[in-house]
Amino acid sequence: MDNQSKRMLDRIDFVLVETSHPGNIGSSARAMKTMGLKNLSLVAPKVFPSTEAEALASGATDLLQNARVVQSVEEAVAAADWVVGTSSRARAVSMPTLDVREAAHQMADHFAANHGEIAILFGPERTGLTNHCLDRCHQLITIPTSESYASLNLAAAVQIVAYELRLAFNGTNIVAESSQYPLATAAEMDGYYQHLEQALVEFDFLDRSNPKLLMRRLRRLYNRAKPDQREINILRGILTAAQSHKNNKKNNT
Amino acid sequence: MDNQSKRMLDRIDFVLVETSHPGNIGSSARAMKTMGLKNLSLVAPKVFPSTEAEALASGATDLLQNARVVQSVEEAVAAADWVVGTSSRARAVSMPTLDVREAAHQMADHFAANHGEIAILFGPERTGLTNHCLDRCHQLITIPTSESYASLNLAAAVQIVAYELRLAFNGTNIVAESSQYPLATAAEMDGYYQHLEQALVEFDFLDRSNPKLLMRRLRRLYNRAKPDQREINILRGILTAAQSHKNNKKNNT
Repeated sequence: MDNQSKRMLDRIDFVLVETSHPGNIGSSARAMKTMGLKNLSLVAPKVFPSTEAEALASGATDLLQNARVVQSVEEAVAAADWVVGTSSRARAVSMPTLDVREAAHQMADHFAANHGEIAILFGPERTGLTNHCLDRCHQLITIPTSESYASLNLAAAVQIVAYELRLAFNGTNIVAESSQYPLATAAEMDGYYQHLEQALVEFDFLDRSNPKLLMRRLRRLYNRAKPDQREINILRGILTAAQSHKNNKKNNT
Repeated sequence: MDNQSKRMLDRIDFVLVETSHPGNIGSSARAMKTMGLKNLSLVAPKVFPSTEAEALASGATDLLQNARVVQSVEEAVAAADWVVGTSSRARAVSMPTLDVREAAHQMADHFAANHGEIAILFGPERTGLTNHCLDRCHQLITIPTSESYASLNLAAAVQIVAYELRLAFNGTNIVAESSQYPLATAAEMDGYYQHLEQALVEFDFLDRSNPKLLMRRLRRLYNRAKPDQREINILRGILTAAQSHKNNKKNNT
């Protein structure tokens, strides 16, 4: 993640409203930090600070130490120019609602347009955000869940929102390269297939069926694996070892 | 979510390997159920069943009651034709790696092509998946995290993977491809690897280098190709043909 994206994540505040279980505060801090988020605000937490929160925060206790504790949601969101509420279910409220993935992209756009701070509100475990809180939100974001069981744990909701923000702000999903060796070239693959065909003839295996069809099937199989050069060397080494037994036999008889 | 997509989620097994904390098993069950997933397997859990797991599962205790408890990862994945390992960081292993979003889409494609069951492995809390487990995987999936703090809680990782699956499977159209052969199961792949190792010993090939490392490299190569059952039969036929020459030699000398 580049520095510009990191600075954008620094302009987002996760606001936990009236959280009942201190363990959830710790787990939420950990979830935030794994995704590179650091600003945690707590509105009237039932128990804080707490050893249970610290235990569950694991290596994210710095977020707890730096957490801003306030007594009202108004105070928590005062500096934000975009306030977002979260819900795991559709609410019977008349306000604009987005799923979390789309919302994360709009937040990236928000900062790209040089706007200010964003506050994201998470309600109490049992009840979710009250109407009083929702009245202070510009937008509601929902996390898609099963129709029959939508009971997301608070820290799990925090984790998904933080994850979507990281991906949206990062822009790219990098797929790690699987091998440090260069892939075999087409010529090297052809060399292997010629070696394989020769060995199969020696093993009396090709005669048993249509040889062209069999070689085509084997080509498809190995091409799918996209072998690197070391792997092709191993495969050819195996063929040579198998052939040398055959040749020994011929020489001995 | 339509019934077809729900049935596809039913063909995915979440396999928690040697989980230390029973609370994490409960939280993982809850995370799965919120996204409509239900198949939980536990490989040698440290404590199970457990009241702590049940407390943290909340409304998802049915997943715990139906959990399959086994003693080896081989047993856990035997029926799967695609086995996936999870990691929150890049591993120093040479195997194909995808981020979780891309992997979820490929899993939807897997079912759309009428393939079988998928097993997704989650390692122990402190250490992650061992090489022994990774050797049984076709693919590694990573969850993007902060470069400076990648310590995702187990249930948080389960939550993100389950969430991405739900989103990827929603609205996937199944295209029947009846002409294709079923993919080889993990047990069939193991049978092939045993046969291959035996043949390599007979060819005096395994002695030349670290045998475990070589077998690991070969597993990675063939797992990447995701062979179908016909292809595995061809590969074993080639081994048998090569071995029979060797055995003939022995009988003649």
